[in-house]
Amino acid sequence: MAEIEIGLGKSGRRGFSLDQLALIPSRRTRDLDKVDLSWQIDAYRFELPFLASPMDSVVSPDRAIEIDQLGGAGVLDLEGVWARHEDPSDALAELATLDHDAAQVRLRELYAAPVDHDLVTQRIKAIHAAGAYAAGSVSPKRVAEMAKTLLAAELDLLVIQGTVISAEHVSDDGEPLNLKQFVRELETPVIVGGCASYQAALHLMRTGAAGVLVGVDGGRAATTHSVTGVGSPMATAIADVRAARMRHLDETGVYVHVIADGGMRSGGDIAKAVACGADAVMLGSALAAADGAPGGTWHWGRTTVHPDLPQGRLVELDAAGSLTEVLTGPAMSSDGSANIFGSLRQAMATLGYETVKELQKAELIVVDP
Amino acid sequence: MAEIEIGLGKSGRRGFSLDQLALIPSRRTRDLDKVDLSWQIDAYRFELPFLASPMDSVVSPDRAIEIDQLGGAGVLDLEGVWARHEDPSDALAELATLDHDAAQVRLRELYAAPVDHDLVTQRIKAIHAAGAYAAGSVSPKRVAEMAKTLLAAELDLLVIQGTVISAEHVSDDGEPLNLKQFVRELETPVIVGGCASYQAALHLMRTGAAGVLVGVDGGRAATTHSVTGVGSPMATAIADVRAARMRHLDETGVYVHVIADGGMRSGGDIAKAVACGADAVMLGSALAAADGAPGGTWHWGRTTVHPDLPQGRLVELDAAGSLTEVLTGPAMSSDGSANIFGSLRQAMATLGYETVKELQKAELIVVDP
Amino acid sequence: MAEIEIGLGKSGRRGFSLDQLALIPSRRTRDLDKVDLSWQIDAYRFELPFLASPMDSVVSPDRAIEIDQLGGAGVLDLEGVWARHEDPSDALAELATLDHDAAQVRLRELYAAPVDHDLVTQRIKAIHAAGAYAAGSVSPKRVAEMAKTLLAAELDLLVIQGTVISAEHVSDDGEPLNLKQFVRELETPVIVGGCASYQAALHLMRTGAAGVLVGVDGGRAATTHSVTGVGSPMATAIADVRAARMRHLDETGVYVHVIADGGMRSGGDIAKAVACGADAVMLGSALAAADGAPGGTWHWGRTTVHPDLPQGRLVELDAAGSLTEVLTGPAMSSDGSANIFGSLRQAMATLGYETVKELQKAELIVVDP
Amino acid sequence: MAEIEIGLGKSGRRGFSLDQLALIPSRRTRDLDKVDLSWQIDAYRFELPFLASPMDSVVSPDRAIEIDQLGGAGVLDLEGVWARHEDPSDALAELATLDHDAAQVRLRELYAAPVDHDLVTQRIKAIHAAGAYAAGSVSPKRVAEMAKTLLAAELDLLVIQGTVISAEHVSDDGEPLNLKQFVRELETPVIVGGCASYQAALHLMRTGAAGVLVGVDGGRAATTHSVTGVGSPMATAIADVRAARMRHLDETGVYVHVIADGGMRSGGDIAKAVACGADAVMLGSALAAADGAPGGTWHWGRTTVHPDLPQGRLVELDAAGSLTEVLTGPAMSSDGSANIFGSLRQAMATLGYETVKELQKAELIVVDP
Repeated sequence: MAEIEIGLGKSGRRGFSLDQLALIPSRRTRDLDKVDLSWQIDAYRFELPFLASPMDSVVSPDRAIEIDQLGGAGVLDLEGVWARHEDPSDALAELATLDHDAAQVRLRELYAAPVDHDLVTQRIKAIHAAGAYAAGSVSPKRVAEMAKTLLAAELDLLVIQGTVISAEHVSDDGEPLNLKQFVRELETPVIVGGCASYQAALHLMRTGAAGVLVGVDGGRAATTHSVTGVGSPMATAIADVRAARMRHLDETGVYVHVIADGGMRSGGDIAKAVACGADAVMLGSALAAADGAPGGTWHWGRTTVHPDLPQGRLVELDAAGSLTEVLTGPAMSSDGSANIFGSLRQAMATLGYETVKELQKAELIVVDP
Repeated sequence: MAEIEIGLGKSGRRGFSLDQLALIPSRRTRDLDKVDLSWQIDAYRFELPFLASPMDSVVSPDRAIEIDQLGGAGVLDLEGVWARHEDPSDALAELATLDHDAAQVRLRELYAAPVDHDLVTQRIKAIHAAGAYAAGSVSPKRVAEMAKTLLAAELDLLVIQGTVISAEHVSDDGEPLNLKQFVRELETPVIVGGCASYQAALHLMRTGAAGVLVGVDGGRAATTHSVTGVGSPMATAIADVRAARMRHLDETGVYVHVIADGGMRSGGDIAKAVACGADAVMLGSALAAADGAPGGTWHWGRTTVHPDLPQGRLVELDAAGSLTEVLTGPAMSSDGSANIFGSLRQAMATLGYETVKELQKAELIVVDP
Repeated sequence: MAEIEIGLGKSGRRGFSLDQLALIPSRRTRDLDKVDLSWQIDAYRFELPFLASPMDSVVSPDRAIEIDQLGGAGVLDLEGVWARHEDPSDALAELATLDHDAAQVRLRELYAAPVDHDLVTQRIKAIHAAGAYAAGSVSPKRVAEMAKTLLAAELDLLVIQGTVISAEHVSDDGEPLNLKQFVRELETPVIVGGCASYQAALHLMRTGAAGVLVGVDGGRAATTHSVTGVGSPMATAIADVRAARMRHLDETGVYVHVIADGGMRSGGDIAKAVACGADAVMLGSALAAADGAPGGTWHWGRTTVHPDLPQGRLVELDAAGSLTEVLTGPAMSSDGSANIFGSLRQAMATLGYETVKELQKAELIVVDP
Repeated sequence: MAEIEIGLGKSGRRGFSLDQLALIPSRRTRDLDKVDLSWQIDAYRFELPFLASPMDSVVSPDRAIEIDQLGGAGVLDLEGVWARHEDPSDALAELATLDHDAAQVRLRELYAAPVDHDLVTQRIKAIHAAGAYAAGSVSPKRVAEMAKTLLAAELDLLVIQGTVISAEHVSDDGEPLNLKQFVRELETPVIVGGCASYQAALHLMRTGAAGVLVGVDGGRAATTHSVTGVGSPMATAIADVRAARMRHLDETGVYVHVIADGGMRSGGDIAKAVACGADAVMLGSALAAADGAPGGTWHWGRTTVHPDLPQGRLVELDAAGSLTEVLTGPAMSSDGSANIFGSLRQAMATLGYETVKELQKAELIVVDP
């Protein structure tokens, strides 16, 4: 592996972001309607290869149902406002009327309330009642406590998400999460992350997870890299985790899905993530910008409201059209923020690929961002 | 070929844009009047090595005649407003008085009208009547339908242009365009594109085309790269297609012209494109900025008005002087937007080259943009 | 060592700044309270691995005591305003009310007064009286003159700091500083710098210094690089000096501390500096931005007030919270300017390292800034 | 020589600008007054290693005398306003009162007047009368016509300057300049340029020139690169020409001076140019910004007023202090625009070099600009 010398005796690899890549068309093209965007993980099939990020500005129970109907998977944050308040609708609606600082104060208040297991159950059931898959997310430290509730409520897909997750966590007070044992015992398929390296991904895959999230420095609302220095240029991270997927498949015969998470906004971003090796993506701000998003025009992440060390901002987004327009068009603008999956389809037609899996073979060129 | 490792097991080449290059003078210089800028493709000879882009903001029938007189080839969009409306002059003039959003709405209306073969014939005849070569462009999907009309009207030069074109298009409903058969049967010389790789270009050359257009992510009005992720750093694309030209020439004895298309605005850009291997260039926004351009101060492309997935913007350009000033000066400004071919001539004199073909041997240096 | 050819027969190495690096998490993570940030140099132990920069906008005698109580080392400039004026408090307070140009004039006046050894003694004793370690800084040219005073006052830690310092200074008029003899004879542990190369650092280490400062082009207030062309991309400089530390340790058995100095503002910057090889850091503007900093909202360095060739600016900083908030939180903002050492702790937990020394083994990736 | 592949079969070298370099201090430092900045070319010795650029906004006859007294060489444009008008002082003073467009029109008028040989003689004699060296510049195409006048007037130093000059110029109508014969016959030492490559420089050196100017895309007022694509990243150009100097010295025993010309503004820029191999520099905008510069606050070059293809702008500069302050300080600002040679002296002291020639050995590091 080529290393760059940073200084005498200290080297590092070169990492690339998706912005530094472009897809090169080759000698074949394809009709748009000959392109298949569907994605299947475990027993679940989606028309579009994405998960909506478990952020309260992206997914509410109603929004999860809408996203399901449009072909994706809306992951509800099971430690978010819908797990803490009987009906946070008014509080969320009120946010839209507040300025940045007042909104931030209000958010801290909303997350000060405790997580209520009954509400979690109620949310999952509401989603099921509408005929949609129920996907939800919990943080590593709360997963043990909530496991029974989630099983009882028959959650379809569990996302265990932290900024960085490892299969080998050091702690002496309290039992650390034994991801391997936990994932194997659970019947629900688990997606776990984020990670950003071959080794970390391989160990997460060995826990029995159905998928791993790639990305440790978050999306548009995150400031993890500037706060802690920890980062993962997305293209390199995906390619490395793809290599872990290949090894794991070779060792076990099990194909673990690689889901790129963080900073992707357009079909072009997604096409490049797939070309690096992703099977699907997790979208946050791109969906928070759609009309009727739960946070109005505000977008924030779980780390935005951390009491000691916030690693995220409360950002105001420009409206990008209805959720349908954002996902499958028609687009009124030409900046890539709308008809995201029409753009992915267009990219695949231009490049001559029929399925998302085939697009993983696309040729990339390194360009200046 | 040197590859850069993007991540474990995934590599890509490094691509360069023209902005990242500079031309290095060597030990010889030459008088300005010892420089020959002419270009010949098939039976057609042009004093200046350029085609004007088939965009309604760049070429109208009258403008095509003017461009012919000034030494270039004005390619009319044979699916544009002049193929859809008896006399779109008033509508185009009206655009100048509209703001961005109103102009965009008006444009969508203009392109909603159907293409009329009689009008196409009429436009070609009008250009011929003025003693000018008639060059026109159609999209791949409409080329079969329009072939007879174009032959009957005795079009001189046919440009078959799509964002990305391949010699091998996958489609099962309806007959896909068999470019090879089509180009061979047609008597009109054909220029086809865009493409951006050795293989794609080689296959297009094997269709019998007289020239290929290099560039898949468009010019100043295009947003293809940000929407779909597909892109082609121009310098690398030209050099790769030049390599295909050499192989094709070696295999067949036929010299296929390489025409760089997209984003070139100054004589310096053109000189660098030629040094990478181009025989001529296609100019869009550079000409749309000239006084009396058909779109007034507006500039847009075919993809700007796509109903579902626009990949282009409607941009407002700064006036750059008369068409003569823009092409051959005198220039009032020193930013390169005027006297484009005087600048190319100056570059060739400085570098000591007599013909455009010789300039292909110029030495390039890679710089920061 | 890989060299880049600048031109025929002239090569140079590639240097990297901390901004061009990111830390990659691996397969292990760790609880926040399992992270130890302490640092010990010579007989002195600090809870947090930093020195506050000897700048009058960063450290006053009172501030030095406060910094000591919070776990760091506040280095007082022993040629600064506190060494020249009986009580500069009013003058410093007045600065806050002045605009940039008036403040600059006032500063020049303040530094026109002579350094008074009795005041130096008095400042050291005041710091000691509060139970804090007394750390102070003098410039190389004044160190001989002040040595007796510093010894008599029982200074704990002496920083000999110039923009660039060498162990081998050429001068014929007057005795040049013989750093080696001086450092060996002094009982006080000495930290000396800045330096930016393996050779320069090795020679400084051989003087018997306890630590060396890495960095020759200063921090936020400095313009050394643009004025003189002299610079040291920080990551490369630290790694090179770390290599000198290893050789010196191998030759002598003595571990000399490597202290990165200049431009670090967040925990992420510090984490990356440590990963390059630093044992601790020197912070300037990050602390000058804390409420109650001696310079109010102004920040300047010694070179700012140079009469002939200023290599620094007088900059106005945005308030970043109380000194406690800046150092250990809680942070109200998410831009990394507050809870700097909480961020470092978070980085270490995320990366799975227990001590600062262990963090030196972290994996780095080279990214675009 | 390492080449970068631009595309299949087309490569180029990587070029570096001075901005992409930094000087690394090593283990030795030096007292400021142990630094010698003097420069000798042919029989002429200068206290400071620079020529003032032959631009009417930089050098007038009076200014040439002033520059001589301050230690440099003021090169008068012998085809400029002082060669065309009996007394252009009022016209130049008037410029200061005009806005950009009016000033540009006025300039075109001023340069429309013919060059008058008697005025040229008069200017040279006026400079001599003040006891200063007379240095003047002519363009290649006028050098034959003016040679006798210059010899008769006993010009001390002749600069033959064009954007790009070659020893091998192709022309059939009219005799091309035979530089070799011309330079050998002339008794006046000649400095000729610009050039930017090993071969071009070697051929210019073989004409018998005392010095060559390095740089083909001009300084702050120039737009040559964007207009024609021709450029020369300065650091690489200097290093290449330095290699030609070494070969020429080896072949002939004659040391030809390498003078970097274009874009240098601070002592840091000059120090880096010298470290790349320059013996001296030519300064333009840096001096045009000094109080009392002939163009007031305006700065322009010969190419700015070209009637067909201007390759330069008329720029307004910020005042940088008196000429003395700009050259040798004291500097009020810390941005490098004043005390340029004090900065160079500081750089040399920091790096431990005694003479400008020694500074050519300094170590460079490649950084991001």
